Amino acid sequence: MSRREPLETTLASNKLQTAFFNLRSNKAFELFVVSIIVFSAVTIGARTYDLPPLLIDVVGMLDVLITLIFLFEIIVRFIGEPDKRRFFHSAWNVFDSLIVIVSLIPIEDSELALIGRLVRIFRVLRMVSLIPELRMLLNSLVKAMPQLGYVALMMFIIFYIYAAVGSTFFASINPELWGDIAVSLLTLFRVMTFEDWTDVMYETMEVYGSSWIFYITFIFFTAFAFLNMIIGIVVNVLEEEHQRERDKKAEASGEPTLRDLQQQLFELKQMMEDRR
Amino acid sequence: MSRREPLETTLASNKLQTAFFNLRSNKAFELFVVSIIVFSAVTIGARTYDLPPLLIDVVGMLDVLITLIFLFEIIVRFIGEPDKRRFFHSAWNVFDSLIVIVSLIPIEDSELALIGRLVRIFRVLRMVSLIPELRMLLNSLVKAMPQLGYVALMMFIIFYIYAAVGSTFFASINPELWGDIAVSLLTLFRVMTFEDWTDVMYETMEVYGSSWIFYITFIFFTAFAFLNMIIGIVVNVLEEEHQRERDKKAEASGEPTLRDLQQQLFELKQMMEDRR
Amino acid sequence: MSRREPLETTLASNKLQTAFFNLRSNKAFELFVVSIIVFSAVTIGARTYDLPPLLIDVVGMLDVLITLIFLFEIIVRFIGEPDKRRFFHSAWNVFDSLIVIVSLIPIEDSELALIGRLVRIFRVLRMVSLIPELRMLLNSLVKAMPQLGYVALMMFIIFYIYAAVGSTFFASINPELWGDIAVSLLTLFRVMTFEDWTDVMYETMEVYGSSWIFYITFIFFTAFAFLNMIIGIVVNVLEEEHQRERDKKAEASGEPTLRDLQQQLFELKQMMEDRR
Amino acid sequence: MSRREPLETTLASNKLQTAFFNLRSNKAFELFVVSIIVFSAVTIGARTYDLPPLLIDVVGMLDVLITLIFLFEIIVRFIGEPDKRRFFHSAWNVFDSLIVIVSLIPIEDSELALIGRLVRIFRVLRMVSLIPELRMLLNSLVKAMPQLGYVALMMFIIFYIYAAVGSTFFASINPELWGDIAVSLLTLFRVMTFEDWTDVMYETMEVYGSSWIFYITFIFFTAFAFLNMIIGIVVNVLEEEHQRERDKKAEASGEPTLRDLQQQLFELKQMMEDRR
Repeated sequence: MSRREPLETTLASNKLQTAFFNLRSNKAFELFVVSIIVFSAVTIGARTYDLPPLLIDVVGMLDVLITLIFLFEIIVRFIGEPDKRRFFHSAWNVFDSLIVIVSLIPIEDSELALIGRLVRIFRVLRMVSLIPELRMLLNSLVKAMPQLGYVALMMFIIFYIYAAVGSTFFASINPELWGDIAVSLLTLFRVMTFEDWTDVMYETMEVYGSSWIFYITFIFFTAFAFLNMIIGIVVNVLEEEHQRERDKKAEASGEPTLRDLQQQLFELKQMMEDRR
Repeated sequence: MSRREPLETTLASNKLQTAFFNLRSNKAFELFVVSIIVFSAVTIGARTYDLPPLLIDVVGMLDVLITLIFLFEIIVRFIGEPDKRRFFHSAWNVFDSLIVIVSLIPIEDSELALIGRLVRIFRVLRMVSLIPELRMLLNSLVKAMPQLGYVALMMFIIFYIYAAVGSTFFASINPELWGDIAVSLLTLFRVMTFEDWTDVMYETMEVYGSSWIFYITFIFFTAFAFLNMIIGIVVNVLEEEHQRERDKKAEASGEPTLRDLQQQLFELKQMMEDRR
Repeated sequence: MSRREPLETTLASNKLQTAFFNLRSNKAFELFVVSIIVFSAVTIGARTYDLPPLLIDVVGMLDVLITLIFLFEIIVRFIGEPDKRRFFHSAWNVFDSLIVIVSLIPIEDSELALIGRLVRIFRVLRMVSLIPELRMLLNSLVKAMPQLGYVALMMFIIFYIYAAVGSTFFASINPELWGDIAVSLLTLFRVMTFEDWTDVMYETMEVYGSSWIFYITFIFFTAFAFLNMIIGIVVNVLEEEHQRERDKKAEASGEPTLRDLQQQLFELKQMMEDRR
Repeated sequence: MSRREPLETTLASNKLQTAFFNLRSNKAFELFVVSIIVFSAVTIGARTYDLPPLLIDVVGMLDVLITLIFLFEIIVRFIGEPDKRRFFHSAWNVFDSLIVIVSLIPIEDSELALIGRLVRIFRVLRMVSLIPELRMLLNSLVKAMPQLGYVALMMFIIFYIYAAVGSTFFASINPELWGDIAVSLLTLFRVMTFEDWTDVMYETMEVYGSSWIFYITFIFFTAFAFLNMIIGIVVNVLEEEHQRERDKKAEASGEPTLRDLQQQLFELKQMMEDRR
């Protein structure tokens, strides 16, 4: 992508932008921001312990400091960006800005205080936005989503049918587990993880003696769907792997293809023909 | 497959058939049917909650409406089918027809009411019959079955022998878990999922001190059989993958094979010989 | 392997042998034996239920009948074998003979009765000796053993060290779980299957606050060893797969190799040189 | 690597060194040391049982004997090493030496006695240092570490955020599970292994009705990260496999490459041109 150079901006702001652009790309600055995030994570962890009042004050002041550093960093990044519009095209920039802005709101109310604490926790996610390798991992998750869409839909249909059957038959046996379709879905998820699933089964088997068929078939169907999902991912990964290898082999090494050889043989023949 | 064109039918019915065939293949009509199925699933879910009497009536009337739409759709599909005999060759069409016909039976009796509700639940499966990607997933399950047959048989033999041994020795210790061979098979399935298997083991170890050998060997054997099953599927998937790739390479790209080159070299030699 | 033809035997016994050899290889006879094994398995299952006295007698008589049929079958197989020494070289033949011989011993004593019942259960394993596909599955298990030997040894060392540490520190906390090294090994196997492992952990954490390190590191090490095992098997399977494919490609298709082409090019050049 | 030959040492010590070097490389000596380690492991196991006083004394004396043999073996290995500096470059030699030295310290104090027992247990690890195949397995673990580093970091971030959220909301519900961030991390590890995770969930759902979202999303994220880890390892293993195969094919078989053929064709053309 080519960037539109902001030639028309005033010289002063241009200088600031270049300075900030350099700062932004500076390895030491990046490391500093990462260490601030780690430090921020530590203060979040510290808050979960019973601290003496003095330390609570210190942590509170550190929090203000961290917020200010984050505000400064986001401003640097924004000013350092040559094309302002592109800044908000990146979901990570929007996420970072939101986290900083919400952190700035003073929190007094107990209701809001909880949200404030949550926002501070989500600051740790900024680590992902800063370290490219983690961003790639997250992207691979997002990319894998649509491919797995149909398997997920299939799984949901299996879950839904079993939940409907379950809440039809077993609701009167144990309303807490099979009361309505939402609760039944949760119970089935529990059965899928094998968590005390026999307790659930033995309870319903006292009324419906052959309800074990319900559980065993459910486990088989979900296991099959799950296997399909894993195989789908593995095949995908291997295909990409093969593609990359083929590309590497074909382009990088300069190895001639069979077609190149065929072309040369054809030329040789032509030469023979010409000389007759 | 070539279709036998029903040229001898009257013009009027032919027109209706063409119209219905077009309607059937219409994307909007398909989407409409899918959304009706989703809506049907929602009403099934809604029924599992305690609803006010008014809403129950509304859901009841909606149910009649959905049944009528499904009846209409199946008639459209049947009339739209050029070759009537082929219609019932598809297991999905038979399944769809059965679901609709059973839905039409008025339900008063409490016994039948339950079956009626079950049939309504299985309507959600119509989703699978309508969306080709889901149908493919189910086909892959059906296709994988015979290949995994011998591993499944091996697993059943392992289960059967352990169940017979278990009910021979442990029946007197806990008849609920080891009373007869059917109950023992269920208990062993539970042990395979690691669900409170130590409770089962500690109970029998009080009488037979070395019965842990029974459980540990069982877990090893089933784990091995399961691993075999997974590897079988993976190897299969990879083989198909390779086959597809080779076909793609060989046919689609027009890349000459080594044999083509050999042929050309042979012709070159012939030309040399001729000129001597 | 070439078979030594017993040309020197008398004509009469030779005729019987040929007849029995043919019978042994007969598909219908094989099917008959398989169905007898299945029937034998069913009677084993039936015995685990409370049966009326009449039926017990019937099952007892059926058992005698099955034993006689098996005795007949093993005699047919033995006489039908051209080379008598080779008969006992097959572990399956030895296993089959043992099962039949022990079944023949009349059982009165209650102690021996149990062994008699066990032998009858193991008759089901004869299924594996008769169906080649199952025999192959079992062979693959036996073949995989030595390859996985070192991973298994590594796993045992991990288990042994953790069991020794566990029984050193935790024996006084719960002697039933950590009393000696054998019991500790069983407890660790339980932890590996995640079966109520937190109950075990919370109990020791009350005395040694940081004993969670013991459990978490153990889970990580065993998970890694297990992963190694699976990957070892998968890589192995893929390698065999590749080998088979390469062999198929190279030999069956008659496709020329690059070396063949090189040879032809060399000959062409020679021809050019000769004509100078 | 070439070894610096210690030519300048006195003849006597040189003789001893050669003798010890030969002893060290002797198969029988290696087997003897392995069997001593196995024997040492057995005595460790024996100590966890209640032994009569006489046997305790015997085990104690055997322990002294084992320690002396190990001391002798490490001295043999050290003197047998041509380059003394290289001896301590190997982490295994350092580990072996430490184990022996700590074993030599006489233990009276109960505090130290425990450490003494632990050191004796870790002697079993010497097995890994002696058997090359086990050393390779351990190396593969160490090598896989950095590659999995980013996935592990991602997983830790997920764990940390969920632990912070968990201890913020649920600390008042059950301080033993969610009291502070360390305890919450342990609870989340438990949830990941599916160990009684529904008990944890149902408890918090009584206060926060929709806290099931917390658990289900956590399970999904960790399952995805775990899948990524496994796929990462598998792809890695396959890549190495491919690399090895390609190397084998290219170098060992002497098969000409396509480029070699191209070169020959080019030469042929040149010859044709020359003759015009």
